Amino acid sequence: MSELITNLTQEQLQEVKRQLAIYAQGVQEIIPTEELEQKIARSVLENRPLKIKLGLDPSAPDVHLGHTVVLNKMRQFQENGHIIQLIIGDFTGKIGDPTGKSVARKQLTDEEVKHNAKTYFEQFAKVIDMDKVELHYNSKWLSQLNFEDVIQLAGKITVARLLERDDFEERIAFNKPISLHEFFYPLMQGYDSVMLECDIELGGTDQHFNILMGRHFQEKYGKEKQVALLMPLLEGLDGVEKMSKSKKNYIGIDESPQEMYGKAMSIPDELMSKYFELVTDFTPDEVKTITEDLNVGILHPRDAKMLLAKTIVRMYHGADAAEKAENHFITVFQKGTMPDEIPVIKWTGQDQVSIPDLIVELDLLTSKSEVRRMISNNGIKLNGEKVEDPQLQVSITNGLIVQVGKRKFIKIQK
Amino acid sequence: MSELITNLTQEQLQEVKRQLAIYAQGVQEIIPTEELEQKIARSVLENRPLKIKLGLDPSAPDVHLGHTVVLNKMRQFQENGHIIQLIIGDFTGKIGDPTGKSVARKQLTDEEVKHNAKTYFEQFAKVIDMDKVELHYNSKWLSQLNFEDVIQLAGKITVARLLERDDFEERIAFNKPISLHEFFYPLMQGYDSVMLECDIELGGTDQHFNILMGRHFQEKYGKEKQVALLMPLLEGLDGVEKMSKSKKNYIGIDESPQEMYGKAMSIPDELMSKYFELVTDFTPDEVKTITEDLNVGILHPRDAKMLLAKTIVRMYHGADAAEKAENHFITVFQKGTMPDEIPVIKWTGQDQVSIPDLIVELDLLTSKSEVRRMISNNGIKLNGEKVEDPQLQVSITNGLIVQVGKRKFIKIQK
Repeated sequence: MSELITNLTQEQLQEVKRQLAIYAQGVQEIIPTEELEQKIARSVLENRPLKIKLGLDPSAPDVHLGHTVVLNKMRQFQENGHIIQLIIGDFTGKIGDPTGKSVARKQLTDEEVKHNAKTYFEQFAKVIDMDKVELHYNSKWLSQLNFEDVIQLAGKITVARLLERDDFEERIAFNKPISLHEFFYPLMQGYDSVMLECDIELGGTDQHFNILMGRHFQEKYGKEKQVALLMPLLEGLDGVEKMSKSKKNYIGIDESPQEMYGKAMSIPDELMSKYFELVTDFTPDEVKTITEDLNVGILHPRDAKMLLAKTIVRMYHGADAAEKAENHFITVFQKGTMPDEIPVIKWTGQDQVSIPDLIVELDLLTSKSEVRRMISNNGIKLNGEKVEDPQLQVSITNGLIVQVGKRKFIKIQK
Repeated sequence: MSELITNLTQEQLQEVKRQLAIYAQGVQEIIPTEELEQKIARSVLENRPLKIKLGLDPSAPDVHLGHTVVLNKMRQFQENGHIIQLIIGDFTGKIGDPTGKSVARKQLTDEEVKHNAKTYFEQFAKVIDMDKVELHYNSKWLSQLNFEDVIQLAGKITVARLLERDDFEERIAFNKPISLHEFFYPLMQGYDSVMLECDIELGGTDQHFNILMGRHFQEKYGKEKQVALLMPLLEGLDGVEKMSKSKKNYIGIDESPQEMYGKAMSIPDELMSKYFELVTDFTPDEVKTITEDLNVGILHPRDAKMLLAKTIVRMYHGADAAEKAENHFITVFQKGTMPDEIPVIKWTGQDQVSIPDLIVELDLLTSKSEVRRMISNNGIKLNGEKVEDPQLQVSITNGLIVQVGKRKFIKIQK
């Protein structure tokens, strides 16, 4: 037991353990746990808040449930009096990709950076108290570095260490080029932690390498090392890939209550416990109960999913909106004739298609004239809503339910 | 044949060929020859001088014959009206080695850089016309680069390309660390060529990679590419290692005529032609004649070496001093009883040793009292000079000739 811990009163020790248990909830990895314990102990002993860093890429400000895994963890620290340091990586954003090859790293103007940051903050405000957050733009210090400073920074790390990063290692193995400037993104992230003297850096497990850079450079610059707190990556609605906007498998926290509820209902059963743990405000005990009830069959998966969907809507739109979204879902999908099991078809066609083409393509009817006749008889529905326009252009989304007549249903997977 | 070449008059074409022949003399590699021809052709056509770059490391300003291989080539360009750009790499020198591990890269002050540069120039003045030289300190532009500029520069090269450099490749293979800042030295050298729009960069073959960086970055920054002109490395007096101060196998161009002459006489026979070609001002035809005469036995190796020694002294101290150095050598070594073949002993003892210890150690006499007696009889000589002090501390140098009595000689190899 460390000296710090032995100096604590019994009450203080309980407080350290209480906080540690909260922060460890749902976490994939803490590097290292002893140092986190030390930092909390010192914080309790000296009544001094910890600095919790979260770095943000200003190029993609749409916040979805995947991001809230980390945001919820932030909120826990904030609720216990610690300071959140949000760092907008605007320096990187303003540089873009000097090779000009990456669309993701296109150069952003000052206005774009500011606008994107504002978009983040408005969305974050739904999870954390933005009034208590420390905001930083890393261009403030990074743009001040000259060539000599950069050489000094680069002198503190080896090429071999950088090549250990999974994606670099892989590209070397497959003879795919790594442009030298790419080595600097992890260095910048590490240097941010030096400048802000962060105690803890949060991120998904895909940030493992970059967050450890913070520890590395803090040590090299004679600072106390931050603790890495890595959250699991949340699979999206497809149940396979990490939730992301580009994979179209996400629930945005700005989406309407109905959309949010409907999308949540399409989460695969096997991911439900993980979602309860990572994206709701349920306590560990509550999550545990739900999981056990599901396992022994006391709780029907559909009911659990409705609870999950309603909870998510409540968190971002309030209790009333959650109630309404649930009622709408019950009216349209459950009180109708919709069966429990709907055949799923993988859509490989275009993103937008006319309603006759869609119905024929799905083999629900054999000709476009049949489709037109069925529409005039109010026999075609999309997500439970009658189609009235026989020329309707349909945007194909994942989970879209197409109904023809009373008994033919197809759910589209995309 | 290129357009440029076909635009030349017959006379101009002859001039291009004449210059090309001179510049190609003694060169190890030209990358690529066609571009060199093009540049000379344009220079002749437009009566516009070429810019010939030579980069200098300000940390080690002692100039020896090894350096003159490149300097002599510079002089040929200068004699044909082209402009020499000397670049003092003071930016690198001022940074030192940020890891603090390399003694060679210790941080230099402004005063040290200036002093070392001045030392270079005084010595260079013996080979090239320093009044016509363009002087540049690369800190002028490199110190102006900010982090964003560095990222742009780094974005123009891949990690794989840098790892191709022999010493990097080797260190990776043997798991020896490469600090990231080391990648920037070749980048800086390349960027210097961008800034100065060099037409040709000169260097030893050990500069192959770094000089090609100039071509690489000039192209990336939309400039015309420089030609790499690589000179062979000159082996030192030991006949094995590259001539260098640290190997103590060099002839400094600031050494006294006698020292210079004596050291030149210790050059191994098999290197004579190379020395004639690379460090004298003899024409290719003259070098060819000497080599042929040596091969067929018309010219005795000792006489050839005396010609070489005298020529080297003449180049750095003038004809009179060369004459005197030769006479001194003849008086001391040849008119004496010194045999043609002297046994060589490899010295593994200390750098400095008393004369009695030396003589006994070499088994020339058996006791120190014998040594003292022999000294009082004027019977011991070092490099032909009588030893008078029986306590003399002798600095052991390579090639030192120790003589006891009339017939015992030993040449020390170190």
